[in-house]
Amino acid sequence: MTLRTRTIEYRDGDVLLEGELACDDAASGPRPGVLVAHTWRGRGEFEAGKARALAELGYAGFALDLYGKGVRGGSVEESRALMRPFMEDRGLLARRMQLALECLRAQDEVDPARTAAIGFCFGGLCVLDLARSGADVGGVVGFHGVLKPPGTTSGNRIRAKVLVLHGWDDPLAPPDELVALGRELTAAGADWQIHAFGHTMHGFTNPQANDPAFGTVYQPDADRRSWQLLESFLREVL
Amino acid sequence: MTLRTRTIEYRDGDVLLEGELACDDAASGPRPGVLVAHTWRGRGEFEAGKARALAELGYAGFALDLYGKGVRGGSVEESRALMRPFMEDRGLLARRMQLALECLRAQDEVDPARTAAIGFCFGGLCVLDLARSGADVGGVVGFHGVLKPPGTTSGNRIRAKVLVLHGWDDPLAPPDELVALGRELTAAGADWQIHAFGHTMHGFTNPQANDPAFGTVYQPDADRRSWQLLESFLREVL
Repeated sequence: MTLRTRTIEYRDGDVLLEGELACDDAASGPRPGVLVAHTWRGRGEFEAGKARALAELGYAGFALDLYGKGVRGGSVEESRALMRPFMEDRGLLARRMQLALECLRAQDEVDPARTAAIGFCFGGLCVLDLARSGADVGGVVGFHGVLKPPGTTSGNRIRAKVLVLHGWDDPLAPPDELVALGRELTAAGADWQIHAFGHTMHGFTNPQANDPAFGTVYQPDADRRSWQLLESFLREVL
Repeated sequence: MTLRTRTIEYRDGDVLLEGELACDDAASGPRPGVLVAHTWRGRGEFEAGKARALAELGYAGFALDLYGKGVRGGSVEESRALMRPFMEDRGLLARRMQLALECLRAQDEVDPARTAAIGFCFGGLCVLDLARSGADVGGVVGFHGVLKPPGTTSGNRIRAKVLVLHGWDDPLAPPDELVALGRELTAAGADWQIHAFGHTMHGFTNPQANDPAFGTVYQPDADRRSWQLLESFLREVL
């Protein structure tokens, strides 16, 4: 196995975006491609690690960029400010996800007919919104994602298979929002699954998360199990 | 692989019970043992098939008997009548589960320190009640199980890991009962997971189930996925 990564610039109008693609060079021929949508901090080492882990599984992992080249949140306040325009304009969010998908599909290493998207925290919302937009991807997987629907996609048919990996004690997505999501995904005709982990808060996949008062705590069992679920899901949909 | 099955009689006082054990003779030494709790019809070919499937995975699968040797429900009415005493006396239910567990542990083929229990429909409730009783099993897995707590176990600590595999459209376990179960398992300190399948009704693992008005319909995707989840879970807990 020879993991190789490279950054890729792409654009939304005047805004320059920069993702990072990870592939295993030992494989030949186009691979299925998997987007990795970032947390509210922006694309960083966490997402790059997930893209490399996907590459180790034989996929082309693409850590996408919603915020703009080099734009990262260095504090909670900065991250919140970066995320806000996308929460207030979910059409912008969906467009940036679609552009990332098109960028991924255009790469030589990628089979454009076989794609999926995964995301973490805010990125979990991003992949749900990609599915909600009706995008033609094989599947989307959200890890401790925000769930709230944009309010503009209720008539859409969801074509992607959906897997939501959820910490039961996540203060950003309480049980009533989980139940509402089940209803929404059912109404949209999605092939969906929701997997809830007990005694698990927001951010459970992030070894740095350690703030119970804020509701984000690393949970190694849920981290390991959720990645196993992801692997099974990708084997099925790609 | 050489699958071998044998019936085993055991007792609850004056009541004679009869389970069926399935093992792969190609394996040597004691194996982890897995109980299979039956639907409201009583132990039948469906449960025997699950026990054999577990044997193919290297476990000793034991299709247990709650109702008594040879006692089966031949109709919905008969099955309901057979189940009723156990729904009205959950202590009886828990005792019969415990006796089945002891019977399994006493078999030469079984490592008594490594056990788990799975169940279907009414049997899903039975394995939950086994966990609720505080039983020392590695894990329990309910497939489209009834969820209602017995009301007598709220102070107990659940030691078994719990996996609930649930059809979102199961009329026997609507979303509010699922949410209540999450709260209950959390309060009991269980290591728990709930996995919900969209567009899936009660009885989704049973190829014979085909009665939408009654709320039971076979769902091949959920059947296949839930068995994969079971395999991963058993690898972890046994």
